[in-house]
Amino acid sequence: MSIAAINARNQFRGRVREIIEGPVVSEVDVETSTGLIVTSVITTRSVKELGLVPGREVIALVKSTEVAIAAL
Amino acid sequence: MSIAAINARNQFRGRVREIIEGPVVSEVDVETSTGLIVTSVITTRSVKELGLVPGREVIALVKSTEVAIAAL
Amino acid sequence: MSIAAINARNQFRGRVREIIEGPVVSEVDVETSTGLIVTSVITTRSVKELGLVPGREVIALVKSTEVAIAAL
Amino acid sequence: MSIAAINARNQFRGRVREIIEGPVVSEVDVETSTGLIVTSVITTRSVKELGLVPGREVIALVKSTEVAIAAL
Amino acid sequence: MSIAAINARNQFRGRVREIIEGPVVSEVDVETSTGLIVTSVITTRSVKELGLVPGREVIALVKSTEVAIAAL
Amino acid sequence: MSIAAINARNQFRGRVREIIEGPVVSEVDVETSTGLIVTSVITTRSVKELGLVPGREVIALVKSTEVAIAAL
Repeated sequence: MSIAAINARNQFRGRVREIIEGPVVSEVDVETSTGLIVTSVITTRSVKELGLVPGREVIALVKSTEVAIAAL
Repeated sequence: MSIAAINARNQFRGRVREIIEGPVVSEVDVETSTGLIVTSVITTRSVKELGLVPGREVIALVKSTEVAIAAL
Repeated sequence: MSIAAINARNQFRGRVREIIEGPVVSEVDVETSTGLIVTSVITTRSVKELGLVPGREVIALVKSTEVAIAAL
Repeated sequence: MSIAAINARNQFRGRVREIIEGPVVSEVDVETSTGLIVTSVITTRSVKELGLVPGREVIALVKSTEVAIAAL
Repeated sequence: MSIAAINARNQFRGRVREIIEGPVVSEVDVETSTGLIVTSVITTRSVKELGLVPGREVIALVKSTEVAIAAL
Repeated sequence: MSIAAINARNQFRGRVREIIEGPVVSEVDVETSTGLIVTSVITTRSVKELGLVPGREVIALVKSTEVAIAAL
């Protein structure tokens, strides 16, 4: 099954740079082409099911309702 | 009160590009220096309390636990 | 660009049953083949970009970190 | 104290099928009567305080603002 | 159906102080006995189904994974 | 870089009371001046980068869209 599009407006395409694996959840760091690092915490089961390894091309996705705004 | 640092690893600094105001929540679009657009939905009260207007310098913040990963 | 797989373990495939459109966010109700209703609130922009209308086949996705557990 | 109702529109009633316990958070898999598996990540403290064990009847709850929609 | 306990460790008991109703989502402000205000955004449908009105006794709940920490 | 204000309406100022450190995420318990305990799960990297230790003054922050409401 292939997904054509998803509503998450915030999509950051990049490559997995590092994975810190834990017993239940893992941290997955994604680096975009502009050098931005986006950090994700997902279940370790998902890391394995998606076959994530450093260098793998992925998209980091965030729902707009999860984004906070800070004023400088 | 000034905040020195926040745990949200994902911080996107930029300027407010557009605000779509609703009666309860508003959409705030932030454009980073590399041209990336990050979309946020926050309460309209917060938009007013923070004094957000187009051009205002802000940081869009996302907790790592809110970031999903999709494989291509 | 097509997505092959996503880490959200909780994927509910169904059809859009109803959309309540607001100025900033909209409620999208999805009905699965077993009659389960899953309710989502996404930006109205996303509703339009995805071309969502009643009857459209979709997947409702939830990150495991967003699921709470209540004991009876 | 007993809760009469909660606003989370998405409530999946079922039984705990499996628990993967970690030092801080645990994965709790819930199976509904129709065979659907809903996965949750909650603190290990909560797993203990709620007395969760395989077979225990529970409700998995998700706020509508946390549900994303993908088009096929 | 009555819920005995929920895993959300952060439970703020109080009374509804104000509701700002929108077409899709509403803001519900809860005041605790110590005068703390907790603000929630839920679907307007839920506001009606729960029969929320100012003065109504409620609990505001937050999952630990949704709480960010800022250093001063 | 110092943050002047953040949109999270729910800000709980207090001191770190306890940290349960895991390999990927850690639980941070914050106690407010009125004795309220707010529990957060953040990455262990953030715990270290923020220099969190028991007694440290912090603010626990929650977006309004993450707060659920239960009726009693």
